[in-house]
Amino acid sequence: MNSQSGKTIGVFDSGFGGLTVLHALLAAHNPVSRYAFLGDSARLPYGSKSRRTIARYAVESARYLVERQNAGFLVIACNTASALALDAITAAVPVPVLGVITPGAEAAKAASRTGDVLVIATDATVQSRAYSAALAAHGLRALEKACPLLVPLVEEGWTSHPVTREIIRIYLDELLAHASSIGMKPDTLLLGCTHYPLIRPLIEQAVPAGIRVIDSAEATAAAVAARFHNRQSSEPTELRFFATDSVEKFERLGSRFLGKPTGPVTLVDLDG
Amino acid sequence: MNSQSGKTIGVFDSGFGGLTVLHALLAAHNPVSRYAFLGDSARLPYGSKSRRTIARYAVESARYLVERQNAGFLVIACNTASALALDAITAAVPVPVLGVITPGAEAAKAASRTGDVLVIATDATVQSRAYSAALAAHGLRALEKACPLLVPLVEEGWTSHPVTREIIRIYLDELLAHASSIGMKPDTLLLGCTHYPLIRPLIEQAVPAGIRVIDSAEATAAAVAARFHNRQSSEPTELRFFATDSVEKFERLGSRFLGKPTGPVTLVDLDG
Repeated sequence: MNSQSGKTIGVFDSGFGGLTVLHALLAAHNPVSRYAFLGDSARLPYGSKSRRTIARYAVESARYLVERQNAGFLVIACNTASALALDAITAAVPVPVLGVITPGAEAAKAASRTGDVLVIATDATVQSRAYSAALAAHGLRALEKACPLLVPLVEEGWTSHPVTREIIRIYLDELLAHASSIGMKPDTLLLGCTHYPLIRPLIEQAVPAGIRVIDSAEATAAAVAARFHNRQSSEPTELRFFATDSVEKFERLGSRFLGKPTGPVTLVDLDG
Repeated sequence: MNSQSGKTIGVFDSGFGGLTVLHALLAAHNPVSRYAFLGDSARLPYGSKSRRTIARYAVESARYLVERQNAGFLVIACNTASALALDAITAAVPVPVLGVITPGAEAAKAASRTGDVLVIATDATVQSRAYSAALAAHGLRALEKACPLLVPLVEEGWTSHPVTREIIRIYLDELLAHASSIGMKPDTLLLGCTHYPLIRPLIEQAVPAGIRVIDSAEATAAAVAARFHNRQSSEPTELRFFATDSVEKFERLGSRFLGKPTGPVTLVDLDG
């Protein structure tokens, strides 16, 4: 496998949110040092679209990373695409593909003692029931809730705003009341959207004592690091960024999610 | 012109919001009785995309309505597309095209005595400066503010929620403070997004006395009715609905914007 140690990891998202996964990949001391990130920003958000449309868009993006950027491994850093299009992507490209759902479910398995797990995510991710299925495969019971205002609040930059705190409280109160009404004893809250790490402090303050917050972005990064742990790399990290629209906006907002400036972003046209 | 009195008006939006314009068209006793509405829901929202991308999408949609649905007149019921793509659409189709910006500006001209007009809209509409330019052409001074949380709040159904009231207050306080700081005496607030009519009661309660709220959807419907006022039609109204994605969601949410059930929606594929 060492011959592949310099290969590129392709990281794909519908927009900027997946940069929190790339941030986690870089923080996880992954020996792979080359990354190509593609944000399909012309067609975001995927969260409100149908499975058929999401699969078509995600496959085009995955092919771009493999065929044009020589990615030898793909991370689908988008919960919606992982939930709705992982099979389609895996069938369409000749490289290993890892989504964020399975690592998130595995991290929940490791964290939960009661076996009852709460999940917050976008509408499309929740409707797909992908987290429920992945958690059930580990013997866990899941209750999912769509929180469609959280992504726009993060994108507005209100990541520590009282209104955001209040909306998180409303969503979590509804979710906890529902869990209680069906006899669940949740001890784990899984963040099933790549935007949510930016409001993780507010979410942690809002959950009752005894509920641990875990994050699919971190879990995915840990899974990638585990996969490549026996490789060595002395090369400096090389990051390349591609977007299907608004590279200026990507450069301006992307740093919030990545935790540092992205540098120049290259515009690509996937359907023209 | 009477020979054309039965022709179809094509109404185009990036999603559902433009149904408030169709609602206003139906309420304006327009003698034209056939409407084809296309929501480009696979690619919504346009508000966060670039001019180039918006123009390409909007032209495809406009052509569909003219070439496939025989629309003889187009209403661009989307502020973002009106702001960024009206020239491109007008050049691409052989029928008259009316956007929502010009009627909105004309209504503001009729309403304002001080000549100072506030505009709230999506980020892309504000960045286009289209309302400022259209208002300046009528001798009015404009101050625009992007309110990116209002569309998701409306789509979440929180149209009379205390959080929505609070967010409107925050946005309007910032806008009024800015207007005051530059010596403006605004007496008119123009709603430059087709989602905003659904929260118009909350907006009207939030503005100070002496500021009148006007709405581009109503203004556009009045402009269409004036254009066709000399026609007569005894035909029953015929409404046809098309969407590029999620017809179930369109049917489920569209009624909020239209004010009555849409009935069946036909899925169309514009880029496949």
